[in-house]
Amino acid sequence: MNFTSDNSYGAWPEILAAVADAGRGAAVSYGGDEITARLEARFGEIFERDVVVYPVISGTAANALALATLVPPHGAIICHAESHIAVDECGAPEFFSHGAKLVGLAGAGAKIVPEAVEASLAHFQKGFVHHAQPWAISITQASERGTVYRPEEVGALSALARRHGLKIHMDGARFANAIAHLKCTPADVTWRAGVDVLSFGATKGGAIAAEAVVFFNRDDVADFEYRRKKSGHLVSKMRFVSAQLEAYLAEGRWLRHAAETNGRAKALAEGLSRIEGAELAHPVEANEIFLHLPNRIVTRLREAGARFYDWTPPEAGRTLIRLVVAFATPEEDIARFLSVARG
Amino acid sequence: MNFTSDNSYGAWPEILAAVADAGRGAAVSYGGDEITARLEARFGEIFERDVVVYPVISGTAANALALATLVPPHGAIICHAESHIAVDECGAPEFFSHGAKLVGLAGAGAKIVPEAVEASLAHFQKGFVHHAQPWAISITQASERGTVYRPEEVGALSALARRHGLKIHMDGARFANAIAHLKCTPADVTWRAGVDVLSFGATKGGAIAAEAVVFFNRDDVADFEYRRKKSGHLVSKMRFVSAQLEAYLAEGRWLRHAAETNGRAKALAEGLSRIEGAELAHPVEANEIFLHLPNRIVTRLREAGARFYDWTPPEAGRTLIRLVVAFATPEEDIARFLSVARG
Amino acid sequence: MNFTSDNSYGAWPEILAAVADAGRGAAVSYGGDEITARLEARFGEIFERDVVVYPVISGTAANALALATLVPPHGAIICHAESHIAVDECGAPEFFSHGAKLVGLAGAGAKIVPEAVEASLAHFQKGFVHHAQPWAISITQASERGTVYRPEEVGALSALARRHGLKIHMDGARFANAIAHLKCTPADVTWRAGVDVLSFGATKGGAIAAEAVVFFNRDDVADFEYRRKKSGHLVSKMRFVSAQLEAYLAEGRWLRHAAETNGRAKALAEGLSRIEGAELAHPVEANEIFLHLPNRIVTRLREAGARFYDWTPPEAGRTLIRLVVAFATPEEDIARFLSVARG
Amino acid sequence: MNFTSDNSYGAWPEILAAVADAGRGAAVSYGGDEITARLEARFGEIFERDVVVYPVISGTAANALALATLVPPHGAIICHAESHIAVDECGAPEFFSHGAKLVGLAGAGAKIVPEAVEASLAHFQKGFVHHAQPWAISITQASERGTVYRPEEVGALSALARRHGLKIHMDGARFANAIAHLKCTPADVTWRAGVDVLSFGATKGGAIAAEAVVFFNRDDVADFEYRRKKSGHLVSKMRFVSAQLEAYLAEGRWLRHAAETNGRAKALAEGLSRIEGAELAHPVEANEIFLHLPNRIVTRLREAGARFYDWTPPEAGRTLIRLVVAFATPEEDIARFLSVARG
Repeated sequence: MNFTSDNSYGAWPEILAAVADAGRGAAVSYGGDEITARLEARFGEIFERDVVVYPVISGTAANALALATLVPPHGAIICHAESHIAVDECGAPEFFSHGAKLVGLAGAGAKIVPEAVEASLAHFQKGFVHHAQPWAISITQASERGTVYRPEEVGALSALARRHGLKIHMDGARFANAIAHLKCTPADVTWRAGVDVLSFGATKGGAIAAEAVVFFNRDDVADFEYRRKKSGHLVSKMRFVSAQLEAYLAEGRWLRHAAETNGRAKALAEGLSRIEGAELAHPVEANEIFLHLPNRIVTRLREAGARFYDWTPPEAGRTLIRLVVAFATPEEDIARFLSVARG
Repeated sequence: MNFTSDNSYGAWPEILAAVADAGRGAAVSYGGDEITARLEARFGEIFERDVVVYPVISGTAANALALATLVPPHGAIICHAESHIAVDECGAPEFFSHGAKLVGLAGAGAKIVPEAVEASLAHFQKGFVHHAQPWAISITQASERGTVYRPEEVGALSALARRHGLKIHMDGARFANAIAHLKCTPADVTWRAGVDVLSFGATKGGAIAAEAVVFFNRDDVADFEYRRKKSGHLVSKMRFVSAQLEAYLAEGRWLRHAAETNGRAKALAEGLSRIEGAELAHPVEANEIFLHLPNRIVTRLREAGARFYDWTPPEAGRTLIRLVVAFATPEEDIARFLSVARG
Repeated sequence: MNFTSDNSYGAWPEILAAVADAGRGAAVSYGGDEITARLEARFGEIFERDVVVYPVISGTAANALALATLVPPHGAIICHAESHIAVDECGAPEFFSHGAKLVGLAGAGAKIVPEAVEASLAHFQKGFVHHAQPWAISITQASERGTVYRPEEVGALSALARRHGLKIHMDGARFANAIAHLKCTPADVTWRAGVDVLSFGATKGGAIAAEAVVFFNRDDVADFEYRRKKSGHLVSKMRFVSAQLEAYLAEGRWLRHAAETNGRAKALAEGLSRIEGAELAHPVEANEIFLHLPNRIVTRLREAGARFYDWTPPEAGRTLIRLVVAFATPEEDIARFLSVARG
Repeated sequence: MNFTSDNSYGAWPEILAAVADAGRGAAVSYGGDEITARLEARFGEIFERDVVVYPVISGTAANALALATLVPPHGAIICHAESHIAVDECGAPEFFSHGAKLVGLAGAGAKIVPEAVEASLAHFQKGFVHHAQPWAISITQASERGTVYRPEEVGALSALARRHGLKIHMDGARFANAIAHLKCTPADVTWRAGVDVLSFGATKGGAIAAEAVVFFNRDDVADFEYRRKKSGHLVSKMRFVSAQLEAYLAEGRWLRHAAETNGRAKALAEGLSRIEGAELAHPVEANEIFLHLPNRIVTRLREAGARFYDWTPPEAGRTLIRLVVAFATPEEDIARFLSVARG
């Protein structure tokens, strides 16, 4: 019963097959191959516009490369205080950007709102040389608490960003889960809502190690390619990474899998929420469940072999735990978890 | 007829199979899995001592992480002026080390010798605050010109290094080819000869994307793990990278393949060297051939569809070209190349 | 009527005289001179222990160099959210430390308390590679709001720091004002209370451009000297900087001036606080006054030529302003400011 | 008898007086004062065009800030292998530029020539993502060996630079000595010859600690002001630095002093060159003498109390020494040095 992370499970058979196929014959290395060449057209269809796409092998690399490309060393990146870039990347955005400052905001469900951004701008004034210069807003879709920004929420942040000359980055490690929840087009919640760059995740959803940095405006690409090379993220046999992304996107698999996973998470959450003393901390919109559970149930689950994270220390007899349902989480594990929890 | 790079070809079937196998069931992410756990023992057998091993996905990452772990921002790294770290990584060592200085030396066959190192130390004096501080020597095995350091050559550099308090890093992107040539043990030309850290390459030899940073002394590991995470190189589903390394090393495959590839390169070189006007620039010790060819033959080869790099601009009617024979270079391509060259 | 900053005024005559004297004859450059050599003994007397002292020319340099020496790139520095290092140095600590993360805490009077530090540590866990590693606490003495940490307050933070393996840095840009207020020894509120490194300010108090980084433990010095050189802060004619510090400390001038300046600030604050609608935001312990004033009085003062900063935007008919009384603020300006404010 | 460095002597009386004067009354800090405001006009007169001028306190800061403003982290800076930026700044350009690569060239008299630059460009190809990208040429005026670039020499480098899209930086730590030698206008050997940014030195010539970064094109300024702040080089009481530059430039003092110092160096060099076994390594064009002297004379000079640097280790019975004549080197020291050398 492993509910610790999406990354605890392997990869889709279709992705493994695509990788096995990708290596036939000689090809131009470092991304000059045909599979990589096809990617931009594929992403272009999905996002309904021309895009520039760079495959990389980790979400941290995608986020840090995207942000460092947008933001200079004296810039500030406004984000949620609990966001992955702020607390779970060991300072990667600071490293790649050579010291840009992350300004972490509070916000319900790990989402930020325009009012909080506006307030933070008072402390980092544009043009005042003593202050780190606000340069970008980074939002996480789905958020660190499994909630999802609606297009109009993204749009409100973008409108504010435009007024202040800020760029918008979206960390889409679980982008598929968000789209599956929103039932909007990928365009609606990204560039049509004002997003400039997207870290498009596939690893959590079922790839081996494949993410894509998607630029919606060619001008923003700037020196991205040098940054990617310089950070060791220009993979020599790139076709193996690109093939994963291609298989991930083929035949709508990415959304079908995400919808199914979301549904299983929602079902598990509903079952758990009916247990006495249990309380959902946030609506379950993607594939993560944040649940307050009585400590004795938490203990019982662990004793039964369930693995998951405590999200905050136990308090007042209960603990906030996080459960992640992955594409390959066995149905019987979910059933057994629920059964043990019910006691 | 693609002789541009080892990276132009795919991956061994055994490695693809191992990757397909690696994803079964749930596992601890970020390297806490069983396959990764087995790696250190495996490398320990190969190197006949305890080692600390970190899988990464590119040679640039391996080199830059290893060097940045050894060398502080005010340090200097002594290397060959043509080495991969000096000219082909877009400044990755400088980026990861936050600005350490690469001091590039001349040297025949892209190898450095103690006399040249000693001379360079006069310009970077230990303890003099105005100078970048010499901290490490980095050598490439096999070298950028396809030549191989013998154990006693490495030992002489190490002896000098020890006298001056310098560490030794070996960039082993083609380590297998070097060992296959030397017919010594992996230990003999690394830690027994004074090497502290090795970038052990597998990608060029036949993996999808897998290299290992091998520390021969635990103390040198220092903050490597934070650097790896911070640079986006801590792969979440690490078992897929570790599985490649395991399959690469299994049953002596890595050396068997390298020996065979070296042999094919040597045979091609011998054939070419008999052509009138052709001259080998360096002995062919690994899988690379550096050959002066009359320009008309170079032109004829390209017209016949051969792909390879000019290494220096044409001069006096001939050009220095590089040919790389990879594990999967088709035998008929080699034969045809030779045949076209002969005219 | 300039109340904007300590830096708006020049330098003491004694310091200008010392500088004029310092240049006689030839001397070893880069700090090898006799005046610089005398500094450590002088600081040793003042702090009642052996110290290592490095003169620099700005407080930002002192803070950033001290912090970067203590904290690695993957480290986190815990500080007040309003501290100078967090908001007024354009990211200098991040630049010098190559990306360490500043974790800004709330706290009354711009001071931090152990409970807030403890809470922040939950989000940056020691040994967890995904998190920036807590490495140091930085406190400001006197604080950004003109309040002063008492020795027991520093001691409580240090006790917590020791338990968690953290270093303590003190930004003492207004250290003289703090000591003059506390009436304790400089040792009592620094190393005896657990401080490891102090940025000792003299510029705000009356020097031209002179600060000192004071290490209380030789081991913490590490590679400071290389960092100073590499950042362009190793002044060639160092004796001119050291002479300023020597004159600042001579004959107890630094404390006498600070006490006098504090006294004048307190008197002005008392006068202002009796005005109807005026309210002090914080006790005036050093040379800064944070005062809520009715907007019409603020306007009247500005129309009369007074210069000072609004600290927060006007709200509910009043504004929080900051007034700084410097060593050279003319007595008549203080009297006139009070008179205009009274209307 | 101190001939070690220009920095071994103090400051001109006129500069000390200007500093003493500069602090009167209140002024806007951080460079908003009147003295700093006057500087751009003053430099504009001297250089016969609009310029943007930033005072800083060290040559290392001036060079590193200028270069980092021109060159991105993935850029390469072409310079002489013996230049100050390459060997005497402990990697400051790499630190400020976040890892740009210095490419050091050979060249007689520590000057570089177009042919050598052209050759180096073959190894760092524009647009090839694996290579650090050539971005700027940095030349030293006067050079590290006391020789001076003539306007046409600078022009030839600039012409090459323009063809390859490179910027030109001039390290003018001894710019006054160079102009005094060339007897051309400051414009002739800088912007008229294609220089984009100049590190204009005053400290070596007689200031306390004052240099100016002079941009000849406003577009190149980019984010210089943030870099200066972020590196701790935005001095709060800037007027004290600006006053030094103003006094340095007033009434043609900078050139008069430099001409006189050059003359004294040349006279000493001529006297020394007539000694048997002595040989000038380079023509003495500024205030530095590079002289081969028999080892026994070197020893005799040191025993008599003379201080100077050996520039290379003794070889074949003689040593290359460097002698610097500073504005304040006593005439009797020069006479005595010559007398002791003659034996």
